[in-house]
Amino acid sequence: MATLVVHNQTSSAQDAEALQQAFKGWGADDKAIIAILGHRNVHQRQEIRKAYEEIYQEDLIKRLESEISGDFERAMYRWMLQPADRDAVLVNVAIKNGTKDYHVIAEIACVLSAEELLAVRRAYHRRYKCSLEEDVAANTTGNLRQLLVGLVTSYRYEGDEINVKFSQTEANVLHESVKEKKGNSEEVIRILTTRSKTQLVATFNRYRDEHGISISKKLLDQTSDDFHKVLHTAIRCINDHKKYYEKVLRNAVKKFGTDEDGLSRVIVTRAEKDLKDIKELYYKRNSVHLEDEVSKETSGDYKKFLLTLLGK
Amino acid sequence: MATLVVHNQTSSAQDAEALQQAFKGWGADDKAIIAILGHRNVHQRQEIRKAYEEIYQEDLIKRLESEISGDFERAMYRWMLQPADRDAVLVNVAIKNGTKDYHVIAEIACVLSAEELLAVRRAYHRRYKCSLEEDVAANTTGNLRQLLVGLVTSYRYEGDEINVKFSQTEANVLHESVKEKKGNSEEVIRILTTRSKTQLVATFNRYRDEHGISISKKLLDQTSDDFHKVLHTAIRCINDHKKYYEKVLRNAVKKFGTDEDGLSRVIVTRAEKDLKDIKELYYKRNSVHLEDEVSKETSGDYKKFLLTLLGK
Repeated sequence: MATLVVHNQTSSAQDAEALQQAFKGWGADDKAIIAILGHRNVHQRQEIRKAYEEIYQEDLIKRLESEISGDFERAMYRWMLQPADRDAVLVNVAIKNGTKDYHVIAEIACVLSAEELLAVRRAYHRRYKCSLEEDVAANTTGNLRQLLVGLVTSYRYEGDEINVKFSQTEANVLHESVKEKKGNSEEVIRILTTRSKTQLVATFNRYRDEHGISISKKLLDQTSDDFHKVLHTAIRCINDHKKYYEKVLRNAVKKFGTDEDGLSRVIVTRAEKDLKDIKELYYKRNSVHLEDEVSKETSGDYKKFLLTLLGK
Repeated sequence: MATLVVHNQTSSAQDAEALQQAFKGWGADDKAIIAILGHRNVHQRQEIRKAYEEIYQEDLIKRLESEISGDFERAMYRWMLQPADRDAVLVNVAIKNGTKDYHVIAEIACVLSAEELLAVRRAYHRRYKCSLEEDVAANTTGNLRQLLVGLVTSYRYEGDEINVKFSQTEANVLHESVKEKKGNSEEVIRILTTRSKTQLVATFNRYRDEHGISISKKLLDQTSDDFHKVLHTAIRCINDHKKYYEKVLRNAVKKFGTDEDGLSRVIVTRAEKDLKDIKELYYKRNSVHLEDEVSKETSGDYKKFLLTLLGK
């Protein structure tokens, strides 16, 4: 379930006018901006952007960027983009910022549905004038490239069928590869990038039944190189993406200095989807409310905005 | 330009009734079937199939399969399917029939537009309850798998932009790899599977300018293994798919015994698109009309049907 609290608006045009009002004078009225945009769903936000453009001949997102700044600006920017467009931006930043945030690419490729991932690839064309896989491939090599390109270009079957024989043999392939570390990455890549998620979960379950430990835990010993890190992320996202996001949030607030990118990313991308479930997992795991942690670790308008999206 | 001569129909229901009439008695009236379905465009054919199902509670394609046989049946079956569904069938047969017709997979992946290829992947899900790349990957290994999976999962950018620097450096990469034969296939795969077709054509042109020979001619010396054969097909399809199809037709009729699969495939898939251009290329290259060759090499209803699609 979502955490976003959607308020009924009178009209997109009135919202656009109220925003214009908030931009007036020295320094924008950030509270008013959050009160409006922090309570509108994705459809309403796109309508407000359209209405703003029509009335003021100006792109609302560009105006927001000039009115606000820092982490608040970055989070609001992601919040205002259409989801596919936002994910295209996230992937592009992950490829090109030099910090090797490959896990963000794996996360988007493995959490989204086949059609959603495709929408991101379309948005990538429009925005960057090349294909998503083109940029991923040009900035990686070897088995890391194969794995990442395979993940972002997948169009997985989404039926419920499970082939028990495959889950058995492929659990063994994964085991052999994980055990040796330098094992057969070619087959691991094939399995992870082409099988349906339902089939993969059956394979992971089979692995745990046979070896008494989950494959993601087993991989933890070996996440020294980028390839194994991405493998780990992909498996966790396919297995249970809510648990995965809970961990991203936990790491983000517990990190020295707080990882605002991770924090914003999860809250902005899941607020309209399943952030309520992720929050509950967070409480169960950490015995502390996510909102309280966010309150402690962030400040100002950024904090207000995140807490609004968290449904406070 | 197309060769298909579309006759105006009165209604899909009347066509369905006329077909039902043609099915009556011992042996179907093949001439009547060709006179109707050989002169209907893809939209009309789908409407006729729908009308037939509504009136007679029977799938027209299944009925056709039971009424006609041999090469005529196979060609008609492919003609009656929606293009994306037909291409899904062609790829599936190429993967699974054991004859290693990998060039058919490369052909479909490289000739279609990004959205058309995607429609094939969707059709593959519906028909085979798994993903196209899943079947391709499970039935190949090594660099052949990487190349084929990369081709079928590509969603190429389709803008006109050309990066001159890339075409220079990547022409060199291709040259080094082709020269050594055992060269860097990883980079060749990256280039062939992720760059836009416009960019690739610029790279191929650059290659010819530098080395005085086209890359596809150069590759001909080396098409001993499946990987290099698929590479050759992919390059030819991206460079000039009409010239490629002309060659497929030439090989199909010149082959001892005639390659009916190749002949039917090109005529059925291109009749509504650019078969007229391919026919002209054929005449220019061979100084003989394609229709005359087809007349000589085929017979019966199969011949009548192909000649009808060829616009005779």
